[in-house]
Amino acid sequence: MCGIVGYIGFREAWPIVLKGLKRLEYRGYDSAGIALIDDQNLNIYKKAGKVKELEDFAAEKNLSGSIGMGHTRWATHGAPSDRNSHPHTSQDGQLSIIHNGIIENYATLKEELISRGHSFNSDTDTEVLIHLIEDIYKNNEVDLSEAVRLALKEVTGAYAIVVMDEKNPNQLIAARKGSPMVIGVGQGEYFIASDATPIVEYTKNVIYLNDNEIAFLKRDELEIKHLDNVVQTPYIQELELKLEMLEKGGYEHFMLKEIYEQPRSIRDCMRGRIYPEEGKVQLGGLKEFTDKLKNIDRIIIVACGTSWHAGLVGEYLIEEYARIPVEVEYASEFRYRNPIITEKDVVIAISQSGETADTMAAIEMAKEKGATIFGICNVVGASIPRITHAGVYTHAGPEIGVASTKAFTAQVTVLTLMAFYMAQQKGTITNSKLTELLTELDCIPDKIHAALQSNDIIKEVSAKIKDASNCLFLGRGSGFPVALEGALKLKEISYIHAEGYPAAEMKHGPIALIDEEMPVVFIATKNSSYEKVISNIQEVKARKGQVIAIVTEGDVEVKKMVDYCIEIPDASEAFLPLLATIPLQLLSYHIAVMRGCNVDQPRNLAKSVTVE
Amino acid sequence: MCGIVGYIGFREAWPIVLKGLKRLEYRGYDSAGIALIDDQNLNIYKKAGKVKELEDFAAEKNLSGSIGMGHTRWATHGAPSDRNSHPHTSQDGQLSIIHNGIIENYATLKEELISRGHSFNSDTDTEVLIHLIEDIYKNNEVDLSEAVRLALKEVTGAYAIVVMDEKNPNQLIAARKGSPMVIGVGQGEYFIASDATPIVEYTKNVIYLNDNEIAFLKRDELEIKHLDNVVQTPYIQELELKLEMLEKGGYEHFMLKEIYEQPRSIRDCMRGRIYPEEGKVQLGGLKEFTDKLKNIDRIIIVACGTSWHAGLVGEYLIEEYARIPVEVEYASEFRYRNPIITEKDVVIAISQSGETADTMAAIEMAKEKGATIFGICNVVGASIPRITHAGVYTHAGPEIGVASTKAFTAQVTVLTLMAFYMAQQKGTITNSKLTELLTELDCIPDKIHAALQSNDIIKEVSAKIKDASNCLFLGRGSGFPVALEGALKLKEISYIHAEGYPAAEMKHGPIALIDEEMPVVFIATKNSSYEKVISNIQEVKARKGQVIAIVTEGDVEVKKMVDYCIEIPDASEAFLPLLATIPLQLLSYHIAVMRGCNVDQPRNLAKSVTVE
Repeated sequence: MCGIVGYIGFREAWPIVLKGLKRLEYRGYDSAGIALIDDQNLNIYKKAGKVKELEDFAAEKNLSGSIGMGHTRWATHGAPSDRNSHPHTSQDGQLSIIHNGIIENYATLKEELISRGHSFNSDTDTEVLIHLIEDIYKNNEVDLSEAVRLALKEVTGAYAIVVMDEKNPNQLIAARKGSPMVIGVGQGEYFIASDATPIVEYTKNVIYLNDNEIAFLKRDELEIKHLDNVVQTPYIQELELKLEMLEKGGYEHFMLKEIYEQPRSIRDCMRGRIYPEEGKVQLGGLKEFTDKLKNIDRIIIVACGTSWHAGLVGEYLIEEYARIPVEVEYASEFRYRNPIITEKDVVIAISQSGETADTMAAIEMAKEKGATIFGICNVVGASIPRITHAGVYTHAGPEIGVASTKAFTAQVTVLTLMAFYMAQQKGTITNSKLTELLTELDCIPDKIHAALQSNDIIKEVSAKIKDASNCLFLGRGSGFPVALEGALKLKEISYIHAEGYPAAEMKHGPIALIDEEMPVVFIATKNSSYEKVISNIQEVKARKGQVIAIVTEGDVEVKKMVDYCIEIPDASEAFLPLLATIPLQLLSYHIAVMRGCNVDQPRNLAKSVTVE
Repeated sequence: MCGIVGYIGFREAWPIVLKGLKRLEYRGYDSAGIALIDDQNLNIYKKAGKVKELEDFAAEKNLSGSIGMGHTRWATHGAPSDRNSHPHTSQDGQLSIIHNGIIENYATLKEELISRGHSFNSDTDTEVLIHLIEDIYKNNEVDLSEAVRLALKEVTGAYAIVVMDEKNPNQLIAARKGSPMVIGVGQGEYFIASDATPIVEYTKNVIYLNDNEIAFLKRDELEIKHLDNVVQTPYIQELELKLEMLEKGGYEHFMLKEIYEQPRSIRDCMRGRIYPEEGKVQLGGLKEFTDKLKNIDRIIIVACGTSWHAGLVGEYLIEEYARIPVEVEYASEFRYRNPIITEKDVVIAISQSGETADTMAAIEMAKEKGATIFGICNVVGASIPRITHAGVYTHAGPEIGVASTKAFTAQVTVLTLMAFYMAQQKGTITNSKLTELLTELDCIPDKIHAALQSNDIIKEVSAKIKDASNCLFLGRGSGFPVALEGALKLKEISYIHAEGYPAAEMKHGPIALIDEEMPVVFIATKNSSYEKVISNIQEVKARKGQVIAIVTEGDVEVKKMVDYCIEIPDASEAFLPLLATIPLQLLSYHIAVMRGCNVDQPRNLAKSVTVE
């Protein structure tokens, strides 16, 4: 989603802001812009397209100034265009703003402002906000800080904003509600950004702005106020992020690097949490909820996109091992459905970024109704970990590729650990069974390493099916969410319309789509539904579909009937999702590269979805 | 799925069997065949393709004989071809068989038979079964009836079969396990069929064969045995089906007729069940479970395909009004997942045909675990209503179009009634609110009639988007299952790859697919999520997608931003799914007709899915 970068200090702002925007590119955007103040002259450069285009466009222009802000826009209101790009300015051009989020009552505000003589140059909700600030500033004899505060009290919706005043090049004003914002604290300089990636190379000291807070930044002074005008004490934290984590490390794309990192990221995720010899799982975050977990009736998992798929895997594992009924909900749907939630319920919220707007909103609603909330997030210190009662970090390291890979498998790993942990607490698993499972889990990183060795075969398969315009992914049991995730990956980065289905559901509709042109990917590993999946493969082959099967090493039966086979190591059913996902990630990666798509920054997509 | 017809009596078998196969065409198939015995000569005619092709092929051949059987095949093992079509014969050609279902252990049996000298002409599991019967018949000095019984004891899987013996033109042997079979009882003649439609014009007296039963039919004698060799007493029932219900009644297709029947079918479904003036719902079938319903913790809905979508609507309604948590499961997935079910749980199984194999299997599993099972079926006397504890029929009348329309809205109507009934029993709804809702529900048939008036506009929209190769359907709340159902309809009959999503999930992946080529259908009626849906429409328009919106009559806001609008009458949120579905049915119908697709018998699809 939209990215925000701001700088005030003693250095030239342009290169810092520009580099910051490049660091934020992974979040997804369709236009970019930067504003600088040089000797009380405000210069704004903005362009539809990539940051590189903005850079070329501004190359010969006046780029000086030690205060500046930049924005990458992911269009919500109005098409991606130069005109709709941020920064936007006030009627008189003195004030400028960048904004992430959606001002929901913009239409009403806009009408009112028009009736008061304002005119607008864009279709955005953002421009309305800066005009509103201007209107209050000019008509109420207050200073700009106060005008911003008063304006924000009038808007509904979500925002992270930075405001600059041409007449006062010694101040940046920033505020947030529902959209993330981090302030980097330097010596005589401050940095602002949507996440820590643009800041890490300058300072390790950061402040995560809270909802309903406004920050007033001068070169040597920072004040934070609540929207209700109460001064807040800033809490400075140290970043764990390292700069080299944000680089490609020799791989052609971040996504490929992240796929190959999985043996390590899953190992990191399990570190200190499993004790195979003792048959024990330890999850520090959940420790104080042991009694709660023993008597729990129901778990609700809320998430969006890839995290929702991880949730479906979690449902299988928790029901199977801990024998607790689990319901998996789309966060966006859950929130608006008047769901039945009580103090007895446990809600698990899953979000890589920890900033997903719909998931945040769902958490807040469940919290109000008294439920206990656990978070599964990757970004330490993000908003969701800060509002949940407890949680388990995935520790996968920063994920830059927009299409999630290592974060997904780390989420699945955490859910596996949680299922085992709950089973252990509830006594629904014997110690010997748990010992056996944990011993096997301990070897999963090596098996993932082995699964990655199929890369060359996968490349060959990719070349055969890369020109398809549609594709189906089918699986049964916990192979079903894997199929959904495989389809989503292909959709996201190759723009092939891929769809996941439970294999048996195919007969109830999707089978009508099958002809010679249609590749069908089956999760056909040796497990309890192997025979049934074979029947489903037969049904597709009888209609001449092209079948690609993910099979267990050494399989012969499926091999005889399908077009292409990709092998993964044998493993217990519990660990199938972790292994079967790997070849599907590689498949979508190679197909996207062969189709010439921008793998790390697919069109229209945002890394963390911070609007509802 | 496969259709079976058999005849033994005093008339010519060919025209009866052929007409029967035509009556069964709606079930979906890809090849057909008929066997007749004339003076101890077995004649078999079979063809890939439609029944009409079989008829043309056999036109000049010897078609005499007063015993015969016919089959329409929906391929599971082996492509649709003349060779794989049924009937299949034994090694010596004396015995012939037709079969619906899947013999799961066919591979092992086949190997054994090959080692005993058998050779096979097809890739089917069916041919293996007739060779097995022959093998037992010849090597065990038993009569054919006994050989069939012994063979069936050796197979695993599901079947409905009919066996004929060239040397004995006075006997048909039929058996079933898991696949439906009806026997029509005439005077000196018997009829066999997969459902009652081929029988109704000859007799109203029928016997529904039970699982694990074998029937031995002679012209003047019928004996039914259990597979364990115990003689059973046949139970003869009277059919309610009328012949004219199976005709098109002036419409170009059954599907269109059934779409237009909905004001009537929904009225039929509510008849005698709602009392608006008293604010009362009466569901006779559930009466004896009143106490159970008052104290219920959880409801699990199991279904497949369109019925699963109705289940999702049911979830919204039951949770909203009766405040009982509901989980909706794919029947196929539920069964194999070791789900947590106890005597406290209520399972609602939804199936138009009442024969869906996966749903049957799920019911049986839940029953074993002690749950109470309610059925929602359309076909009176089908297998599911016979194995559930109680149920509510949809009374939509026979549905012939393979893509379900009136059965879906009738299922939704029954679920609406159930939600209100439970709310009334539990006291979670006031009498005045219920009176208000029932008064409105009573007018829904008229509003559906009004919604059908948009047909001309829908035709225009269809012409604009008919050449799309992909399409998205988006909705929120109970508009989400409507979107899923709209997408499924389009997929089924036009072979356009359409996919349904909760509108807010679009940002988490599918938005990557959106460009100028992609039509996106929004359910954007005026209800609690109206504003949020508008934001989602903006996001699609910002990326140049073509938007078709289903809106509430008189809407202006959405109209301004989208490409095409289709209006439906205003109604409470509870009834939105019943109304918003109508234009989507018409949209898929017209697009399919314009694309030249076979609307009533789409490729690859079966009406009732009687294999797993």
